[in-house]
Formats: sequence, structure tokens, C-alpha cells
Amino acid sequence: MSSAHKQKSVFVGSFVHSKSLEVLEVLHDLAVFVDEKGVIVAIEEHCDKQQALQVIAPKLGWTIGDVSVRVAAPGQFFFPGFIDTHIHAPQYPNVGIFGKTTLLDWLNTYTFPMESSLSSISKAKRVYTRCIQRTLSHGTTTASYYATISVPSTNLLSDLCLTLGQRAFIGRCCMDSLAPDYYRDESAATSIADTKATMDHIAKIDPTNALITPIITPRFAPACTRELMHGLGALQKETGFPVQTHISENKNEVKLVKEMFPGFESYTHVYDGHGLLTPKTILAHAVHLTEAEVDLIKAREGKISHCPCSNSAITSGTAKVRMMLNKGLDIGLGTDVSGGYSPSILEAVRQASLVSRHVAMEGDDDSKLSIEEVLYLGTKGGAKVVGLEDKIGSFGLGMEWDAQLIGLGNVPVDVDQDGIEEESPVDIFGWENWEERIAKWVFNGDDRNTLAVWVKGRLVHERK
Amino acid sequence: MSSAHKQKSVFVGSFVHSKSLEVLEVLHDLAVFVDEKGVIVAIEEHCDKQQALQVIAPKLGWTIGDVSVRVAAPGQFFFPGFIDTHIHAPQYPNVGIFGKTTLLDWLNTYTFPMESSLSSISKAKRVYTRCIQRTLSHGTTTASYYATISVPSTNLLSDLCLTLGQRAFIGRCCMDSLAPDYYRDESAATSIADTKATMDHIAKIDPTNALITPIITPRFAPACTRELMHGLGALQKETGFPVQTHISENKNEVKLVKEMFPGFESYTHVYDGHGLLTPKTILAHAVHLTEAEVDLIKAREGKISHCPCSNSAITSGTAKVRMMLNKGLDIGLGTDVSGGYSPSILEAVRQASLVSRHVAMEGDDDSKLSIEEVLYLGTKGGAKVVGLEDKIGSFGLGMEWDAQLIGLGNVPVDVDQDGIEEESPVDIFGWENWEERIAKWVFNGDDRNTLAVWVKGRLVHERK
Repeated sequence: MSSAHKQKSVFVGSFVHSKSLEVLEVLHDLAVFVDEKGVIVAIEEHCDKQQALQVIAPKLGWTIGDVSVRVAAPGQFFFPGFIDTHIHAPQYPNVGIFGKTTLLDWLNTYTFPMESSLSSISKAKRVYTRCIQRTLSHGTTTASYYATISVPSTNLLSDLCLTLGQRAFIGRCCMDSLAPDYYRDESAATSIADTKATMDHIAKIDPTNALITPIITPRFAPACTRELMHGLGALQKETGFPVQTHISENKNEVKLVKEMFPGFESYTHVYDGHGLLTPKTILAHAVHLTEAEVDLIKAREGKISHCPCSNSAITSGTAKVRMMLNKGLDIGLGTDVSGGYSPSILEAVRQASLVSRHVAMEGDDDSKLSIEEVLYLGTKGGAKVVGLEDKIGSFGLGMEWDAQLIGLGNVPVDVDQDGIEEESPVDIFGWENWEERIAKWVFNGDDRNTLAVWVKGRLVHERK
Repeated sequence: MSSAHKQKSVFVGSFVHSKSLEVLEVLHDLAVFVDEKGVIVAIEEHCDKQQALQVIAPKLGWTIGDVSVRVAAPGQFFFPGFIDTHIHAPQYPNVGIFGKTTLLDWLNTYTFPMESSLSSISKAKRVYTRCIQRTLSHGTTTASYYATISVPSTNLLSDLCLTLGQRAFIGRCCMDSLAPDYYRDESAATSIADTKATMDHIAKIDPTNALITPIITPRFAPACTRELMHGLGALQKETGFPVQTHISENKNEVKLVKEMFPGFESYTHVYDGHGLLTPKTILAHAVHLTEAEVDLIKAREGKISHCPCSNSAITSGTAKVRMMLNKGLDIGLGTDVSGGYSPSILEAVRQASLVSRHVAMEGDDDSKLSIEEVLYLGTKGGAKVVGLEDKIGSFGLGMEWDAQLIGLGNVPVDVDQDGIEEESPVDIFGWENWEERIAKWVFNGDDRNTLAVWVKGRLVHERK
């Protein structure tokens, strides 16, 4: 761990975060004080750097020399770290590669061969390190990862997240059915034993789950026997760890589940019937759910990961986010690398906006999501989905400092015809209000605008 | 003009370009020789830098000392410059700012106030310079621009394109009806006279239209009286210059046209009835056309600018590109800044792929566009739309050198845990074939991968 992690810090300037689904709060001249544990211990309004250090720090009993200070320049702002509620780390090398496939042929053509190959520890190290570096550089401070079926390489993913400082849920993929011979758990019993082995590893490296938490990961119903799902449901009850899986992504998949599990009323009932639909369950995609299924998920307090990039790329469908929000479900965003083509949650934010407009064009004009709403999904909504809304996703006393510093580009008044000097894809002319600046960031911003990233107070990424 | 423009050049390495809608050709060890006029005068296969300079250059009668050489490093490739067949330069400051509006309220809320304000020459200079710099940096070598109604600021846009080296069609916006009082041509007569004034200016600064060409630009039927449209139709016949306008973008707009022009069978018939539907006419959007309208456009050899970013962002609809391609129409891509949120044609390429999948999800599975097809639309297809398919859009003897050099990022075998050194959003691990590399570029690439850009042989952008 870097020394920055152990240091008291104060962050001064403009802050933007979601107060609720509809309200994005913009605060200026704020100072946020973060202790050695990464916890926000004071927030002061109408405060500048000098006052923060000379008046407030001493009140906290802090010695000025021990405090690191980061001031957001005018126009820059601190924003909560993004939360990726659904990402497959081993598929990272395949981003953008999907051809004209849909889910079931995509799995066999691109996904299973790549995941299987990551039983090689050296290859896994290269792929996972780059995946974590990339997602950190895009401002993802928390990720809920699917790994592979391999225990050693799943453990490596846990180790790397801890070393590189990304908050993560790590799930060994459980799949003992309907997958190719070369990439399948031997039996329900080995699948559960191997999963426990990855939990034991995390218990050793991060005993309090301060940063890394195991997540029980039945790949999806078609890839699991009933025995395995029952066993994983029992393991959830025993350990209290969260669950993640896929649901109702693709019409052929829904049909397949109906055929494979004839005794169940719906796809959702399959998970519910095996103890896998809990308040700690993250269901990814949820494209073709019936209203009755949404009601059942709501009754069980299950969570939804919306993956717009993936749903469009591999032609799965358009998730009805407004309908699910209106029903009271908690929803976050997932990149779903590599069904999704981008490791960036900002891209998922953008596509969530665009896809909601496609739903509107299908006839439901109310379905359009605002900038405020899509940013909520990528932060505070995601925090609720991973069960950490009291710690991350927005700024507040007692919460942890998972944040990114955002900077946009300024167009000089006398433009230089030699070219563009600044490394920002967003151009601010100076007359834009804050609402407009944030819209420009959402629609044209990228990792170049994420100047620095912190997790639990530790600086984990900074643009050079 | 820079001295590079006057120099003989040779480009050596890998080249990628569209042979047809379906076929993207990848060629290695090629040398392309470009003369002082920017014309490709020789293409040599199985050639390296040494052979190009020592064997081929002398055969062309070139002295080695006069020749500039650019070698694409392994993995890099030369690609035709992108062609933006529909972009509003004065709306550039509004990229990403559209809220929940649709076309008609979007025009009044965001667009007309911004365009009107660019009658200020100093503001226009700042906005247009940055717009041209940005689009060049994204690899746009040709743009078909809408300016504003102001003659001096439209002339400034022509001047700046010439100075900065972007091939451009420049259209003064003609609108003498249904626009706000503060931003409307006084009459059909002044609209036509002002348009001629911008044509005269271009005749002075670029008499042969080597780089800059006027384009007759009735904004769209609802903003034009019949007198104005008749006058512009006659002006087209008289001058032979191309025409650009909008068509059938939004359902309320289609309804409005039906009400305003009761004697006409369809929106397309309105343009046809005023001499504005010609083989040199670029029709932007074409979202809600009937098949009969598509047939009429085909009969007149009119061209289509597909603007997927804009059509999704302001909830216009999904253009039926496959249907129009099957009917034999020529189609290119437009950013439609700022109905479209991005100045990048690569983003339009990406969204053309995704939107075609939304059309597939509406029921027509055949509508999905391949990587080859969307890249064709952004280059060779666009060249046909602007009537320059014999000069630009692909590489060939006698064509002009409008090109970009693309470089992707390589992930080191021993990844450095300190972070990502290279400035590329695309990660190549080394096992990807060329088809996969190009897919990764299309889905995760941006202006950082456009290392250098040439128009007519002149280097107009280079990343530092």
C-alpha cells in the first residue's frame, strides 16, 4: 500500500454528487477532511485552502505538516468514484470484438475460449492488471467482477485489486452445466468447494473485507445444475456474502431457461426457488423481465445492474429502466465487459441516456433518463446495488473517500491556430453554466478528464 | 499554407481502406507516392522505405532529398480521412447540450440563439477555429458545413478551412420562414443574394474549388418559403453547385411539412418540386421516409447523410440504413453537431453500428451493419455523397492523399503496475488478428489513435 493511504487529507473546491435520483448537487468552496483510514471526518462550507489548514485542521487535532491538500482548480470538481456493478475481468482483451453475434453464440465463439485461457497465471496477471489499471483510469473505484472457474487466477484477481487499490467484489464463475467440456466445473460439489477456496483466500488477504469481498457467482441458470444453485443458495445463507448472476438478457436465453427448468413460473422464479434471490443479489441485464418478475424482485429486494453498451452491442434488447425505477428497484450500471465494448462507466452513463431514448422511440416518452438520473445510476445507484450506500457513491460525513477529480478543457479566447494544446476532449468556452458543463462531460468526456482517482483515501490513479 | 503541402511524399507500411461496402482491404508493405499537388502518382507492393527511396523514387524522376517519408510502425496503418457529410459549425459549442428536447424545441432553445450570436466575427473565429481543429484531430479531412445566415461569418468559415487545410463544403443557411425574428433572412431575394455573396467570396479565395466549394443550403422546408426554394433550385441549375438540407428527421416535423405544403405528396416531393432534389443533393437524417420517397430519391440520384448520434440523442428515430442501401442509395455519415453530441466520425461509425442493432431489435435482423460497412459509410460512402468518390474516400492511383495514420496501444508482456504509459484508449495484447484490431479501434478508439492527418498531401494535424 502506498504511503498516501495512511495520510490525512483535505480536498478543497467544487463538489458534484447525487442527492437523489433526480437531484445532482453542485457545491462550491467546500473543504472535505479525510482521515488516515479514508473516512470523511469533517465537511466545511465557505472554506478555502488557507482556512482549511489554519482553522479547521487544528480543531480536528491535525498537525498541518501531516495533511496532504488537493485543491480543485476553478472549473474542476470532485465527483464520486464510479461503481461498475457488472464486469468480467477475463473478457477484457475482447472489448469491441463481437461481430454480429448474440449472447449464446457470442459465449462459444469469443468468451469461453478467452476465459479458459486465463488458467495461465502469467496471462491472467497481464490481463487483470491492465483491466484494473484501465477501469481505475476511467474513474471506477468499485467493481463487481466475474473471474473464471480457475481458483488460482481468481485469487490473483483479488490480490491485484488489493495491491492496485480498487474496491472489488470477486466472484469465481460457477458453471457445471451446458458449457464446453474444456471450460466447466467438474461437479456441483467441486464448484462449491472451489468457490469456498477463493473465499478463504480473501479472508487471508483482507480479513475485514475492507476492500475485497467475495461474491457468490452462479454464471447464469442455463450453466448451472439445480444441485449447484441449491448449494450456492445455502452458501449465501451461511456466509452472508452477496450473489451476482445474469437474468433475462436475451430472448433465446429466456426460452432456454423455460425449457431447462419446466417447473418454474419464470426465469426469476428459478433463482428465487434456489435461495439465490436475496437483498444482496445483483441481477445483470434484466432486459426481458415481465412485470410480475419485476414485482418478485422488488419483494425480495434484489438489485439490478443495467448494461446498456452490452445490450445494444450484442443485440439483446433495451432494458426498461424507467419501468423498473417506477417499481422501486435499485439500479446501477455495468460495463459488462466484453459483451459491453468499453471499460468505462462514463460510456455506460452516456449509453444509458441514449438507450432510454430508444425506449422512448418505441412509444414510452416518459422513459427518457436525464443527465442527473444517469449519473445517479453510475454512482449512488450503483452503491445501493453493491450494498455500500452508507460508505460510497456520494459524499457525506462518515463515508469513505472514493472519488475522482474531473477537469474539463478551456478554449482560449485567442485560439491558437497551431492546434489544441490541452489534453481534454471536452471544450469549455466559458459561458456554460454548471449544468451545461456536466452535460458536456457526460457526452464528450473520457479518461482524460479523470485527473486523479482515490479509493478509501488512497490515491490510486493520477494522470501525468 | 505549410511547406509540407508543396513537398513530394512517400508513405510506407500497412494500409486499410474500403474496396466496397462489404470488403475492407488490409495491405501490408505498401508504398504510396504522393506528388506536390497531393495526388497519388505511384503505388508499389512488397516495398520498404529503402526500396521506395532508392529504386522507385528515381523511376518517378524524384530526387531523394526532396521527398518526405512517413513509415507506419508495425501495427500502425494508414486509413482514408473521414468524411463528415453533415455538420453545423456554429453549433459546435453546444455539443452534449440538448436536455430532453426533440427537434423543434431543441432548435428554439439551444440552436437559434447560438447561431445568431455568431454574427459576432470574434466569437465566430473562436468557435469555427476550434471546430475545425477538433474535427481534423478526429481524422475528418472533408466536412460539409452548415454555417449561419451571416455572410461575413460564413466567409470566415471558408477562410479558416482553407488556412487550416480542411476540405470543405460551405453553406450559408437559407431560412426566410418560421424562424424567430432575430434570426431569419429578410426575404427570399436577400437570402439568395447573400448566398451568392458567399459563393463570390469562395471564388476569390479558391477559384478552382480545390479545397473549398460552396453548397446551396435551404435549412429545411419548414424554414423556407416556396419562393426561396424555387430560387435556390434555379441557383443550383445555374451554378452546378451541390445542395444540402434536412429531411424527415422527426415525426412532428414531417407533420408540419404536410400542413405547410398541402399540394405535395410527401416531404421528398416538396424538395423535388422546387428543383432541389438532384444527384448533387445531400439529404440529412432521412429517418421517417416512406419507401415511395426512397424510390423517388433513388430515381433522382439524391444522397443520404446518416446521423445516428443525433437521431438517438434528440429522440428523432432510427434511420433504416439497410433498407436504403438495399434500394441502392448512396449513404455517408454525419456527426450533425450539435444535434449529435460528438465532433467525431469514429463515434458516428460506432453509433451507426449500435443503431443498426436497435433496428434489428425492432424486428429486422438483416439490418445489422458490420464493421466493414460502417467504416465504408464513414469514408468511401461519404465520398460518394459529396460527389468526390474519384478523389477521396479510399486509396488509388490518381486519387488525392486525404488520409490519417492510426496507431493502437500495445500492452507490454510484463505489465508495469505503476500505470499505463501509452496514450491510447485501445489495448492490443498481440494475439489479435487485423480484423480484431480494427474492431477494437472502432469500439474503443478516439482522437488519441489518430496520430497524423493529411489533406491533399498537406499535413494538417499531428499528435505531439
